Amino acid sequence: MTADVTLVLGGARSGKSRYAEGLVTAPGGPRVYIATSQVWDAEMAERVAKHRDDRGPDWTTVEEPRDLTGSLRRHAAEGTGVLVDCLTLWLTNLMMAEADIAAETAALVELLPALPGRVVLVSNEVGLGIVPDNALARRFRDHAGRLHQSIAAVAPRVVLTVAGLPMFVKGTPA
Amino acid sequence: MTADVTLVLGGARSGKSRYAEGLVTAPGGPRVYIATSQVWDAEMAERVAKHRDDRGPDWTTVEEPRDLTGSLRRHAAEGTGVLVDCLTLWLTNLMMAEADIAAETAALVELLPALPGRVVLVSNEVGLGIVPDNALARRFRDHAGRLHQSIAAVAPRVVLTVAGLPMFVKGTPA
Amino acid sequence: MTADVTLVLGGARSGKSRYAEGLVTAPGGPRVYIATSQVWDAEMAERVAKHRDDRGPDWTTVEEPRDLTGSLRRHAAEGTGVLVDCLTLWLTNLMMAEADIAAETAALVELLPALPGRVVLVSNEVGLGIVPDNALARRFRDHAGRLHQSIAAVAPRVVLTVAGLPMFVKGTPA
Repeated sequence: MTADVTLVLGGARSGKSRYAEGLVTAPGGPRVYIATSQVWDAEMAERVAKHRDDRGPDWTTVEEPRDLTGSLRRHAAEGTGVLVDCLTLWLTNLMMAEADIAAETAALVELLPALPGRVVLVSNEVGLGIVPDNALARRFRDHAGRLHQSIAAVAPRVVLTVAGLPMFVKGTPA
Repeated sequence: MTADVTLVLGGARSGKSRYAEGLVTAPGGPRVYIATSQVWDAEMAERVAKHRDDRGPDWTTVEEPRDLTGSLRRHAAEGTGVLVDCLTLWLTNLMMAEADIAAETAALVELLPALPGRVVLVSNEVGLGIVPDNALARRFRDHAGRLHQSIAAVAPRVVLTVAGLPMFVKGTPA
Repeated sequence: MTADVTLVLGGARSGKSRYAEGLVTAPGGPRVYIATSQVWDAEMAERVAKHRDDRGPDWTTVEEPRDLTGSLRRHAAEGTGVLVDCLTLWLTNLMMAEADIAAETAALVELLPALPGRVVLVSNEVGLGIVPDNALARRFRDHAGRLHQSIAAVAPRVVLTVAGLPMFVKGTPA
């Protein structure tokens, strides 16, 4: 049996979160939203609040900036939809904490195929611009790219959202 | 009846304008080019002149940096092809003028499905790089992303150009 | 007869080199890796070494930072696979040397359809972020975009890699 895992990649304001929410909603049943964001400033606080309002009251929201693998293990279940929003913020948190990103990534990628229920992972595609000036940003996009490749290799579905619309990079609509 | 509207997204030098011109040319008849650019410096002046030369003399060119909705209402007509190049410059002009972008976007999106003839809108996809350092650039790509989503929801055709070639995100070739 | 040329575009850490290596490996026979990199700092040296290790010992590696057309003419042959990694570094080298980029691009594009064997060209897609602040970066992405368009017009296959997976922009898998 293949796990029901979808990786939703997209640029800024490409509608990836909304599309991902629609995927999780489809099968009905309980829905868990794993928010990886850490609120650093007013701009981010506003975004988080807006996203929560857009989602509506039918979701259980879990805040998990660091232990994503543990959180997925606890919340994924048959008949449940879990949405992780988003991997890039999780990665940012790991970098800030100077965590072992290769190890964290490996643990996540190993877990994913074993998870029950439907799991949708949202992440920002950040690698299609000019090489950033600063080394930290370059390291970040290297980590993000490697993470996306590793997950895409085990996920049966990979979607790139453009202007709110899905382009299927791997697999077909569920 | 569905309006004949195409959104052509693409990166810098991805051939989006040329592809869009080909779309407008296809049905024959009069062609109107709505240029939203405001010339700020020599680099931009050169680009504008080059684009005009590339297009050739068979186009009526209209310069409309701000009132895009009004210009579309005036120029769209049965048997006519209208090309808007580009939405990102229009958005830049609105931001510089501190216009109400949500209202302007809503008016455009409301108008589009009612327009006669063929309408092709070109815009830069700018959201697939690293988060920009400055807040203005972040606001710009937020506005651009939302605009693209809103238009893509009502346009029957959405194309992403890559290396001069079209990838159909929505719909099929006209 | 159409030449067996593939352009593999992709963002940073999108798996473009690995995908391209797989394309070259497919038909068996000798394989030549044309490396265009010039090592400027420790970060780049590390990347070059890692790529070489990943590729394994079955490749002949040729370093050619400037004369890509000459190198392709020398190494492309029936039954041979040639991988150029990557065009964006070649372009960087040309810009640093203040070479005539239009002429170099034209010579490459003219040569490609005449090459025997399988040729795979890897390049970074860099045009999908915010307009860079500095003029040099803007010129670079203009050159890169034009180069990609020119090659895509003559190559029977163009691929955009996303998260290590190929999206076919032109043609079908070989």
